[in-house]
Amino acid sequence: MMGKKGALKAASLGERGIIDMIRSELASRGAAQPDPPLPHPDDASAMRLPDGRFLVIKTDMFVRRTDAPRGMRHLSMGWKAITMNVSDMAAKGAMPAAAMVALGIPRGYGAGALRLFFRGVSEAARHYGFPILGGDVGEARDLCASVFLVGYAGSLVRRSGAHPGDILAVTGEFGSTGAAYRILLERMAAPAPLRRALCRSVFNPRARLREGVALADSGSLSSSMDSSDGLAFTLHSLAKSSGCGFELTSLPISGHALEFARLHSISAEDLALRGGEEYELAVTVPPERWGDAMEVAAAAGGSLIRIGTAVEGSGVRLTSGGVRELPEDGWEHLR
Amino acid sequence: MMGKKGALKAASLGERGIIDMIRSELASRGAAQPDPPLPHPDDASAMRLPDGRFLVIKTDMFVRRTDAPRGMRHLSMGWKAITMNVSDMAAKGAMPAAAMVALGIPRGYGAGALRLFFRGVSEAARHYGFPILGGDVGEARDLCASVFLVGYAGSLVRRSGAHPGDILAVTGEFGSTGAAYRILLERMAAPAPLRRALCRSVFNPRARLREGVALADSGSLSSSMDSSDGLAFTLHSLAKSSGCGFELTSLPISGHALEFARLHSISAEDLALRGGEEYELAVTVPPERWGDAMEVAAAAGGSLIRIGTAVEGSGVRLTSGGVRELPEDGWEHLR
Repeated sequence: MMGKKGALKAASLGERGIIDMIRSELASRGAAQPDPPLPHPDDASAMRLPDGRFLVIKTDMFVRRTDAPRGMRHLSMGWKAITMNVSDMAAKGAMPAAAMVALGIPRGYGAGALRLFFRGVSEAARHYGFPILGGDVGEARDLCASVFLVGYAGSLVRRSGAHPGDILAVTGEFGSTGAAYRILLERMAAPAPLRRALCRSVFNPRARLREGVALADSGSLSSSMDSSDGLAFTLHSLAKSSGCGFELTSLPISGHALEFARLHSISAEDLALRGGEEYELAVTVPPERWGDAMEVAAAAGGSLIRIGTAVEGSGVRLTSGGVRELPEDGWEHLR
Repeated sequence: MMGKKGALKAASLGERGIIDMIRSELASRGAAQPDPPLPHPDDASAMRLPDGRFLVIKTDMFVRRTDAPRGMRHLSMGWKAITMNVSDMAAKGAMPAAAMVALGIPRGYGAGALRLFFRGVSEAARHYGFPILGGDVGEARDLCASVFLVGYAGSLVRRSGAHPGDILAVTGEFGSTGAAYRILLERMAAPAPLRRALCRSVFNPRARLREGVALADSGSLSSSMDSSDGLAFTLHSLAKSSGCGFELTSLPISGHALEFARLHSISAEDLALRGGEEYELAVTVPPERWGDAMEVAAAAGGSLIRIGTAVEGSGVRLTSGGVRELPEDGWEHLR
């Protein structure tokens, strides 16, 4: 089909179009799971086990060309390849039990660079507490690594459980990665200490695993999602999956992002809403569980920052400084 | 490191050199599993679960450029991507519970071709009896699909358990794929019916899942390995892992391979020993369990063909028509 004139191309379907096409093919051929515990498009996939727990699996591919901005070292790439998968498990409340890494390497790739990549993979796996059981090595034109995580959860938190009245919260501040990408990709300037602090957010990604699992186990969340596609896109997705809207009363913007925005007279809100790759969790909490949830997050070494409320209807509105509709501004592969 | 002159390159390490380097990095950073139930270089990876069973995971990447010979349709590619992973699980006695597929697609790839690829993936998953739970889609320069399988086993069969005196057996005949590759890659001729029959072996790959699981559960195997890297290479690997040698008294060569070899005056043994991609199992059975094992294989819809015996020492010898050492002739990526 590849060279056929007029044939529909992958690029014109886009990542989500391709996924929809694949899902319909799987379903019509009887290869999909009926009534999955984490229905599409949730952060990970799950299957109920005979003992009542859930097997949770996740795969996300790290591709150097698109996932490693200029200046990112191989050690950080390894950390990121693991972290991007752990963050999705964390959002569902699952603890990873083991990982595999399928590596694609160009022939001329440096062996030392590969070793550093796996040092990052190893350090990250150890940090999050699971072994790398094995993997696969093949030739590819770009360095890429498909990480495959297997985990278990006692209870799962879907994207679809938010109810009007629930408190909307996140596990950290936003904007630093957005500012760092402006520096790394658009070569925008910043004084060295600020530059270093901002770039650290991109080069040292950490997932909120302890918080995510503890919050899910406590039963205090009504919905949860990893924020790595950007806060605006994440909140829109959570709203859509839950069939509600969100009103944002405040945005938790990092001090460094505020400083960078002031320096360049650009919008700090924009950095926070559209940066992406923050690996924070966006969750909703029924108001009566809010106190519990904050305690659980603190006991797990993190925190919950209240940013708004789930409301009837749809869409996401900023209500600080006048009401504005928040555009989705997602980021899609292959478009 | 990529452009640095004199730096060690991935290509010069070879696939196994890279894997060894990665393993040492994982081990020295505390990210490897101590005392794994299936030690490297076994067909899959495993972890003992609290209930005594084993979690078995496997990933192998299908890359169109290297895994799909000329003439292979997308439906067959999908079958093959699943089958190559299932066969490794089958060899360990594990039943797959679920799969994920991480897909890399070139921008200009045909959507219809992708759909057919996933029709193959779906049909294969259904054939082997597990759902595809999800996956990931990214851009790549070649069509590639990392399949991740999660399965469970009550008991595992390692590569390393063969003892001198054990019977060496395989689950089917060899040689057809080797002949098919001569036709597809070297454009060697064959009458249409023979050509079709031979190519079917490449285009309709089937793993011996029922036999593998039933044999492992029966406890009648001392070792087992998937044969898809070629029979010669497989037997050498099994011998090395077990610390023994093998004497082959006969080779189970398919009638079609014999016919093709006769037609071109080439060695049918060579086709059988070095073809690869057969997805049969090579196993060893203690002599007192041989009767049981044959019955179990038959009850699972297959058969065991006795081809030789495990002996003291090392290496693999053909003893039919004079004794000859069998060269390893493995096939390695990235060399």
